[in-house]
Amino acid sequence: MEERYDIAIIGSGPAGLSAAINAKIRNKKYILFGTKNLSFKIKKAPKVNNYLGFYDITGEELGTKFKEHIENMGVNITEERVNAVYAMGDYFTLMVNDKAYESKTLIIASGMEFSKPLKGEEELIGKGVGYCATCDAPLYKGKTATIVAYTKEAESDANYVSELVSKLYYVPLYRETVEVNSNIQIINDRPLEILGDEKVEKLQLKNSEISTDAVFILKDSVAPAQLVPGLLVEDGHIKADRKMLTNIEGCYAAGDCTGKPYQYLKSAGEGQVAALNAIEYLDTRK
Amino acid sequence: MEERYDIAIIGSGPAGLSAAINAKIRNKKYILFGTKNLSFKIKKAPKVNNYLGFYDITGEELGTKFKEHIENMGVNITEERVNAVYAMGDYFTLMVNDKAYESKTLIIASGMEFSKPLKGEEELIGKGVGYCATCDAPLYKGKTATIVAYTKEAESDANYVSELVSKLYYVPLYRETVEVNSNIQIINDRPLEILGDEKVEKLQLKNSEISTDAVFILKDSVAPAQLVPGLLVEDGHIKADRKMLTNIEGCYAAGDCTGKPYQYLKSAGEGQVAALNAIEYLDTRK
Ligand SMILES: Cc1cc2nc3c(=O)[nH]c(=O)nc-3n(C[C@H](O)[C@H](O)[C@H](O)COP(=O)(O)OP(=O)(O)OC[C@H]3O[C@@H](n4cnc5c(N)ncnc54)[C@H](O)[C@@H]3O)c2cc1C
Ligand SMILES: Cc1cc2nc3c(=O)[nH]c(=O)nc-3n(C[C@H](O)[C@H](O)[C@H](O)COP(=O)(O)OP(=O)(O)OC[C@H]3O[C@@H](n4cnc5c(N)ncnc54)[C@H](O)[C@@H]3O)c2cc1C
Repeated sequence: MEERYDIAIIGSGPAGLSAAINAKIRNKKYILFGTKNLSFKIKKAPKVNNYLGFYDITGEELGTKFKEHIENMGVNITEERVNAVYAMGDYFTLMVNDKAYESKTLIIASGMEFSKPLKGEEELIGKGVGYCATCDAPLYKGKTATIVAYTKEAESDANYVSELVSKLYYVPLYRETVEVNSNIQIINDRPLEILGDEKVEKLQLKNSEISTDAVFILKDSVAPAQLVPGLLVEDGHIKADRKMLTNIEGCYAAGDCTGKPYQYLKSAGEGQVAALNAIEYLDTRK
Repeated sequence: MEERYDIAIIGSGPAGLSAAINAKIRNKKYILFGTKNLSFKIKKAPKVNNYLGFYDITGEELGTKFKEHIENMGVNITEERVNAVYAMGDYFTLMVNDKAYESKTLIIASGMEFSKPLKGEEELIGKGVGYCATCDAPLYKGKTATIVAYTKEAESDANYVSELVSKLYYVPLYRETVEVNSNIQIINDRPLEILGDEKVEKLQLKNSEISTDAVFILKDSVAPAQLVPGLLVEDGHIKADRKMLTNIEGCYAAGDCTGKPYQYLKSAGEGQVAALNAIEYLDTRK
């Protein structure tokens, strides 16, 4: 285990990047989890006019500006997905597969996930349906598991899981080329429903059907309440006050995950506020 | 009187500019009050590293980026100072000297004023001390008045007032060259205290003393509660919720005036949120 961080930031969209810049300027020991692509949502915007200072810029170009900014400041992105966070009282433990990180404060900047749940998904959560493949895979040793992957980032999870279970199906729902270990069976079909009475039995797809003991659904973001047990969520958004403080001491949130409007500038502004208030909190605890 | 606006924005710092951009994108009838210099605070920063997207930029350069952005979008700044705003129920009346504007919603983005009050200033408010020279000047017809000017913008007020009172002293506290009508007596000295029992009698300066019936103190921002009677202010900041809504229906606030941290990006993000929520409010009222 490494030394305890001052600030752990989950998410590399505008909210997380802005938080990291402010943590860096204030000389805090921080860690920023996300992807080097920053956020697929940044890239998606065809034309952005509402980020003050940049007129008529594409999402792609704006992403490049963000990247240059953090690179020039030496802000590094740790390319890992946080699966769960536990509030331990005066610090947080962040689980990343088999690793654990500790931090005195936490900033959740994980964005919003809009895809609808599959039929049967919600009914079977905890009965074979899960959102952290690497956490739950050990429960399915010698059994059959299926990963429904909304993003390419799921591939490394799939490789890891394939070493634990006896059979792994992989249903990719993204456009990029799929690159996974050869012992994984790729299913190019659209999932419709998860079936089972007491526990998961089958995944029904448009043109096929898989018998499976577990279905892991890997999206870009997990629901915040799943990520941090005990976190107060209202209408699907993390409840935060004007300091971006959540109901948990030392735990802040910023960006789309805290509510509408869903916008770059709002997210970046909130990331800054979250970081500066986390720093103030750290200072009072000294 | 012109047609009623959808959104009136007071202040041309990052908060006000961002609000205006969003009002423009959403095709609302808006008016933005401020100065073509945007905000003297923008220009002051020697180096800015915490506005995501711009690394190692001066305040001056950032101001230029903001200016280019609004100019490209055809966002115009009305160079007038709002002296007072009255909530009329379902609209607001904004007083600008002898003119009045009407708007369905209001966004206060007037920044923070940090200069300390003069000795005696607070005790004599309404007894000769005022913050809107052009509003109160008619009360001092045939009398002597003094303007203590923290910014060059006060000059046009001074010229106007000098036509009403019999004698006007002008105490400039800024560095730029003073350009006022020749009937105004310029006093280059530091004001220390306002004296008087029932009403203002004298302004004591470091090296001199002026007998005067009124002292108008013209700062970059007036206190929000002075600007909008009835507005709820806590610890010197406008109280706003996560929608940037104040205690008055249809009245939003953004930027430094809503509280710390005092930062560009926080202000710009809040300006966006205020505008988008004002628009949502307008839509529900239709
Ligand atoms: C097509 C499209 C067009 C848009 N156009 C505009 C526009 O013109 N103007 C505008 O202002 N907004 C626009 N938006 C909205 C804008 O993209 C979002 O408001 C903004 O990206 C939100 O920023 P964020 O930092 O909150 O989250 P996101 O940008 O969603 O970033 C969240 C990041 O966190 C990461 N993450 C999540 N969970 C974890 C975890 N457990 N561990 C590690 N990392 C994790 C994700 O991988 C992601 O990288 C658009 C959105 C879309 C989809
Ligand atoms: C020296 C200095 C350095 C700084 N450095 C940084 C930095 O590096 N990074 C950072 O993020 N922040 C920095 N700041 C803080 C930053 O300048 C402020 O947070 C930001 O300008 C606030 O924006 P705002 O839109 O709320 O208000 P302001 O920028 O203060 O703008 C308010 C505007 O409203 C106008 N106004 C007020 N009342 C009225 C009225 N009644 N009628 C019409 N117009 C009115 C004013 O004239 C002004 O133009 C610095 C500030 C200073 C002074």
